[in-house]
Amino acid sequence: MIKFQAEIDVMPKKEILDPQGKAVTGSMKNLGLSEIQNVRIGKHITLEIEAESEAAATAKVDEACKNLLANLIMESYSFTLHQA
Amino acid sequence: MIKFQAEIDVMPKKEILDPQGKAVTGSMKNLGLSEIQNVRIGKHITLEIEAESEAAATAKVDEACKNLLANLIMESYSFTLHQA
Repeated sequence: MIKFQAEIDVMPKKEILDPQGKAVTGSMKNLGLSEIQNVRIGKHITLEIEAESEAAATAKVDEACKNLLANLIMESYSFTLHQA
Repeated sequence: MIKFQAEIDVMPKKEILDPQGKAVTGSMKNLGLSEIQNVRIGKHITLEIEAESEAAATAKVDEACKNLLANLIMESYSFTLHQA
């Protein structure tokens, strides 16, 4: 079995309002960072997975994203794998 | 002015317990994904920034991370910049 580390990003979809991001965009102005715009906030997830091949690990991580980590109605996800 | 896109990861520090990640690690077992271990959950933040150079943009994003986006006592951050 090979051990992989996955780095997953789960972000609110573009067409969905991100109130947390909007609030942070507003706060940037108060901090004197008005050149920062369009902040969007999602989740970054790291995990370890043991699998027989990179393809098998990719399939398992994809399953975890679809069934648990991301709400596909409102969020999209992407991930990268590397050997741990 | 050049427009950059920043991709920021804010993660709980290694020595800090991540109860949300622990709960998700447990749920993986119930989903039949027991080969997934050590889930840690942080934030992924994207933003747009206008600056005169990449160095200036880097400094501004670093300031935003330190002052607003990350709690440096409990979290560490990293980011990449690319031209939008």
